[in-house]
Amino acid sequence: MEKQIVERITGSCPSRNPVFREQALERQSQLTKPPGSLGKLEDIAVRLADLQQSHQPGLDNIAISVFAADHGVAEEGVSAFPQEVTGQMALNFLNGGAAINVLATQLGASLEVIDVGVLNELPDAPGLIVQRAGKGTANSAREAAMTQQQLQVALQAGFDAVERAIAHKADLFIGGDMGIGNTTAASALYCALLGLSAEQASGAGTGLDQQGIARKAEVVERIYSLHQHQCGDDALEWLRCVGGFEIAALCSATIHAAQSGLAVLVDGFISSASALCALKINPDISDWLFFSHISAEQGHRKAMQEMNQTGLLDLQMRLGEGSGAATAALLMRAACALHNDMATFAEAAVAGKDDKA
Amino acid sequence: MEKQIVERITGSCPSRNPVFREQALERQSQLTKPPGSLGKLEDIAVRLADLQQSHQPGLDNIAISVFAADHGVAEEGVSAFPQEVTGQMALNFLNGGAAINVLATQLGASLEVIDVGVLNELPDAPGLIVQRAGKGTANSAREAAMTQQQLQVALQAGFDAVERAIAHKADLFIGGDMGIGNTTAASALYCALLGLSAEQASGAGTGLDQQGIARKAEVVERIYSLHQHQCGDDALEWLRCVGGFEIAALCSATIHAAQSGLAVLVDGFISSASALCALKINPDISDWLFFSHISAEQGHRKAMQEMNQTGLLDLQMRLGEGSGAATAALLMRAACALHNDMATFAEAAVAGKDDKA
Repeated sequence: MEKQIVERITGSCPSRNPVFREQALERQSQLTKPPGSLGKLEDIAVRLADLQQSHQPGLDNIAISVFAADHGVAEEGVSAFPQEVTGQMALNFLNGGAAINVLATQLGASLEVIDVGVLNELPDAPGLIVQRAGKGTANSAREAAMTQQQLQVALQAGFDAVERAIAHKADLFIGGDMGIGNTTAASALYCALLGLSAEQASGAGTGLDQQGIARKAEVVERIYSLHQHQCGDDALEWLRCVGGFEIAALCSATIHAAQSGLAVLVDGFISSASALCALKINPDISDWLFFSHISAEQGHRKAMQEMNQTGLLDLQMRLGEGSGAATAALLMRAACALHNDMATFAEAAVAGKDDKA
Repeated sequence: MEKQIVERITGSCPSRNPVFREQALERQSQLTKPPGSLGKLEDIAVRLADLQQSHQPGLDNIAISVFAADHGVAEEGVSAFPQEVTGQMALNFLNGGAAINVLATQLGASLEVIDVGVLNELPDAPGLIVQRAGKGTANSAREAAMTQQQLQVALQAGFDAVERAIAHKADLFIGGDMGIGNTTAASALYCALLGLSAEQASGAGTGLDQQGIARKAEVVERIYSLHQHQCGDDALEWLRCVGGFEIAALCSATIHAAQSGLAVLVDGFISSASALCALKINPDISDWLFFSHISAEQGHRKAMQEMNQTGLLDLQMRLGEGSGAATAALLMRAACALHNDMATFAEAAVAGKDDKA
């Protein structure tokens, strides 16, 4: 890896004036409710006030970037859907028909699709960014998924998506994924970076049966064994050898958003694996990451526990595309509104806790 | 209890044409996502399509009614906040400063406040409905919380709120509560109707310390013992003897909404106790109830388990007012949008599961 890009992804995040967090906590204690009674919604508002360095945390401009790419490992028969679905779904995103489109509309969020390496090139369309690292990755069960050069292209795609989000004054970044075969790549990353077993980390993906899951776990085990010596405890090298173009782009986007002072809402199984790589590469980013949900995909709950994360939602979702994050963003926006718009005890002339009658 | 009102609350719910549920399930299987991958959001959309008897389930008109009343049992020292907070918070609702106001604005929902028996009468204000059953209930640790006549007034308040919601073409009913001392009443109902122990059912409410919680559990035990012989397994009589005016109104509103073909989204600790009474009185309503969240209030998780409910959210909220339900409604609306607006595999020309390439 070129020194320049390694320096870029390990660079620090902006320092913050603690006064915003302190004043947000103080305000929460003054709002007309028992202290703590809004639970995680209070934590979200306080964290966003701190990260945004604002007394009025807000999520008016949410930027969603969905990265699509294919996976050579699909030839091992690890998915219930055929590989051409990656490109077909990318077109569905561009035509407005997918879950993430509907949720983006609900949020009034911007949505762009980045082709980081779908097997067959997509027709030009509004909202499509083309930054291809290849015609899908190589089969990680046989060789490294990508070359150094390909990894660099994929990382650059993530950086650039965040630059566009910042240019549009985004106050939250959501990255989504599309890639038939990518749960296999993410499973391998959980094995490599969290020590999960292949069985613990391998699930149904888009809909494998029990036999399919067992075969997939064998493939994950093979991938892990093949690259273990080469990768050791180098998260970036694991990302290159067993990850995917979209997973690498999500990783660099997560890092660069944090470095740019932009909060990131992490989606489910795939995005969390990207975030895991990002955290291993650059632990300084951790404050900037919100984890949106526990996916129903086998291994995610365990992985989240290992990462000391709980997630806001637990709705048995397992779609990817950023859909879990976009759903959770509805609650984060409500958390901001509650923080900003509720009356204080003094404003409402309501007696406080333990006040005498 | 008059025969008329007993007949009214035990009356049946509308029958439904199964075709709407079947077609909603069929549509979910055709949308461009792996089957089941939107988890509980799919279930919500299908249930609403069935209940609303519509191919396009929607939550455009959400009606929120917050019932406020005082509790004689407050004199036992069971709350961290003084009793006048009930009326002060009701005024806060009317002035737009409370959590439920902010969430209602987020939802574009209607919001009304019903004084079912706050200690001191509230000044007239737009959005205030006055239907008082008394100056707070009697102290249930010493006598029945309400007379038969008072119970009837409170039940009528619930019926009438639903009638107003229907007149405004509501597609979802949310009931909220405000009443210092009402977690004690709800705890007693969980003991009586689910067999929870006083310790299991008694929590911090608005913010008791450990000593306060222990005292409250003693009071709950005393309430339960005092009324056990009189009430037996009669849920309506338990409601009268240990409940509150707002709890009774929520109970009848829940029943009447279901009887009127209007889905109900149940809030947390207090509302679930009302729903429990409603289900015991009229089991026919169960299809019409959605449970919004697991409250952080001690005993709610256990009570929900006993009621075979999971709730959509688990955000450590414990505020009441309908706030947990209003937060969950954001997700239910997203569930409807996903159901109605996503493209099918055929529309998007995406290959389905197990299709050959």
